[in-house]
Amino acid sequence: MASPEDSLIARYFQPLVTDPGALGLGDDAAVLKALGDDIVVTTDAIVENVHFLSDDPPHSIARKALRVNLSDLAAKGATPAGFTLTLALRKADEAWLTSFAHGLGEDIKLFDYPLLGGDTVSTPGPLMISITAFGRVPEGKMVRRNGAKAGHRVVVTGTIGDAALGLDILRDGAVAIALSSDKAARDMLIGRYRVPQPRNALAKLIRTHASAAMDVSDGLAGDLGKLCVASGVSATIELPSIPLSSAAEDLIARGVVGVEMLIAGGDDYEVLCTVPDDSLDAFVRDAGVAGVKVTTIGTIVNGSSAAKFRDAGGRDVTLSRLSYSHF
Amino acid sequence: MASPEDSLIARYFQPLVTDPGALGLGDDAAVLKALGDDIVVTTDAIVENVHFLSDDPPHSIARKALRVNLSDLAAKGATPAGFTLTLALRKADEAWLTSFAHGLGEDIKLFDYPLLGGDTVSTPGPLMISITAFGRVPEGKMVRRNGAKAGHRVVVTGTIGDAALGLDILRDGAVAIALSSDKAARDMLIGRYRVPQPRNALAKLIRTHASAAMDVSDGLAGDLGKLCVASGVSATIELPSIPLSSAAEDLIARGVVGVEMLIAGGDDYEVLCTVPDDSLDAFVRDAGVAGVKVTTIGTIVNGSSAAKFRDAGGRDVTLSRLSYSHF
Repeated sequence: MASPEDSLIARYFQPLVTDPGALGLGDDAAVLKALGDDIVVTTDAIVENVHFLSDDPPHSIARKALRVNLSDLAAKGATPAGFTLTLALRKADEAWLTSFAHGLGEDIKLFDYPLLGGDTVSTPGPLMISITAFGRVPEGKMVRRNGAKAGHRVVVTGTIGDAALGLDILRDGAVAIALSSDKAARDMLIGRYRVPQPRNALAKLIRTHASAAMDVSDGLAGDLGKLCVASGVSATIELPSIPLSSAAEDLIARGVVGVEMLIAGGDDYEVLCTVPDDSLDAFVRDAGVAGVKVTTIGTIVNGSSAAKFRDAGGRDVTLSRLSYSHF
Repeated sequence: MASPEDSLIARYFQPLVTDPGALGLGDDAAVLKALGDDIVVTTDAIVENVHFLSDDPPHSIARKALRVNLSDLAAKGATPAGFTLTLALRKADEAWLTSFAHGLGEDIKLFDYPLLGGDTVSTPGPLMISITAFGRVPEGKMVRRNGAKAGHRVVVTGTIGDAALGLDILRDGAVAIALSSDKAARDMLIGRYRVPQPRNALAKLIRTHASAAMDVSDGLAGDLGKLCVASGVSATIELPSIPLSSAAEDLIARGVVGVEMLIAGGDDYEVLCTVPDDSLDAFVRDAGVAGVKVTTIGTIVNGSSAAKFRDAGGRDVTLSRLSYSHF
């Protein structure tokens, strides 16, 4: 009696269920218990050859689909509560689905992030994975984009620009050539593109200390612009303070890429936030305890002009391409 | 500073916001207040040329995308609480988006169903609209598929099979030819395919009276099978009791289609539920007050065999194609 669609769900996705509210994926809907918290809702889709490449390993595609949403929850100060998955497939390919479900299952456990439901549809077009993510925050405590005030420090997690370099390698660009004899660096940068490291370990700290936050998905410069617009402020950023991996530093030193590519490129999935001065030390210290490096890169200032980026000599640097856009 | 993507959201979707939790679509996430209820979560995607046709009016595509999810909430006994929208577009076509947003906005008001967030991505492939829907039920009160017991009556809302007939017309099938001189019937059936009528007016009654429920999206026969499997029961259905529109009855009387096409065809978006005998009168009466016709079509019986369908003479009818499947 079961349809091929039901069989696909039974085979690949029901084994991943960890939460009773998913009802074993056997009903039309799931139950999400709010437990007195606010539910934070965010949704992000990834499309083949736009957000991932056709020959990316399916398990890393699954991880990326999940993690771009986990990254949003982290930036909002929310604890993961679950997600729904919509999968648009050209066909039910066994090897692909086995690998995809494996990656999904690993991250469900790693982030304690239950699958609550989904839909599987066929498409003649590119693969697409759409995830709607749920998180919890205490009532009224979601961290927004609009709380930055003059004097607050601008802070980012991790390193910036590695994913853009990884994508360039996968597209056989200048970075691929420059690193042709350095497999370790290539692998690291490709890994940063394929499998983001969402900063969920910092969710509670962000909730406690940040006045505004968002995740960096479309490039640091452009996303900072959005945060500033939402908060009605501007910012001054010290380019030499932006945290880079040693691979990225090396590529800049060799003249292979400019810093602009790194801060305009997408797919970082780091957290950009603003922290009042009197919270900064505690935030940096406690983030370190949580195993995440955070770096102060500038300061919020009054005004409505675009953020200024300054070089080591204190000179303003003009950036032309600030953000990745799909249209 | 705004990206084309942000401009698209600002132009077409921000004007549709009705709920403060959406934060004006200006943040990375929305806030859904649970208010002590359970949150019911369901997700359904519709794909061009699979669930709708390329030349369907964009406003009806928007309505269909919303309503297939509203229908799930209705069947689960849940009151609409909001939704997120993922839109995969080939390009940002102004006329298309204007019409799409208009249909969406109308239904947001009609069903008091706030837009909470979304994502817009570009695709070279078919249009796809994925919606994740949220509803509320009092704690523990979501109506599941698995509560049907022997003796409970099988009830459906509205009429069955009209959408399958409408799709046949849009594909220039036998129904189109048979109704070539009856524009009113053609328009009615096409309308049933393009714009489902979700039974949200019955959500509270379903919660109160139904032992099991689901919406009929993949054909009555197949969906009844799923409900029976989930409940560990079987059913006996009286084919002559299945509610049909007069257009459908006429097409059967003329031999244009068989009843099998109607009960195996998809896209009904009616509610199929089981109701204990002592609740049946109240359910039928109160549904009538709410303006929705409900019809008893059979009875749940013990057993695990496929549901039996009987003709007017009480003879079992064998059905070959029970459900629409995407794979």
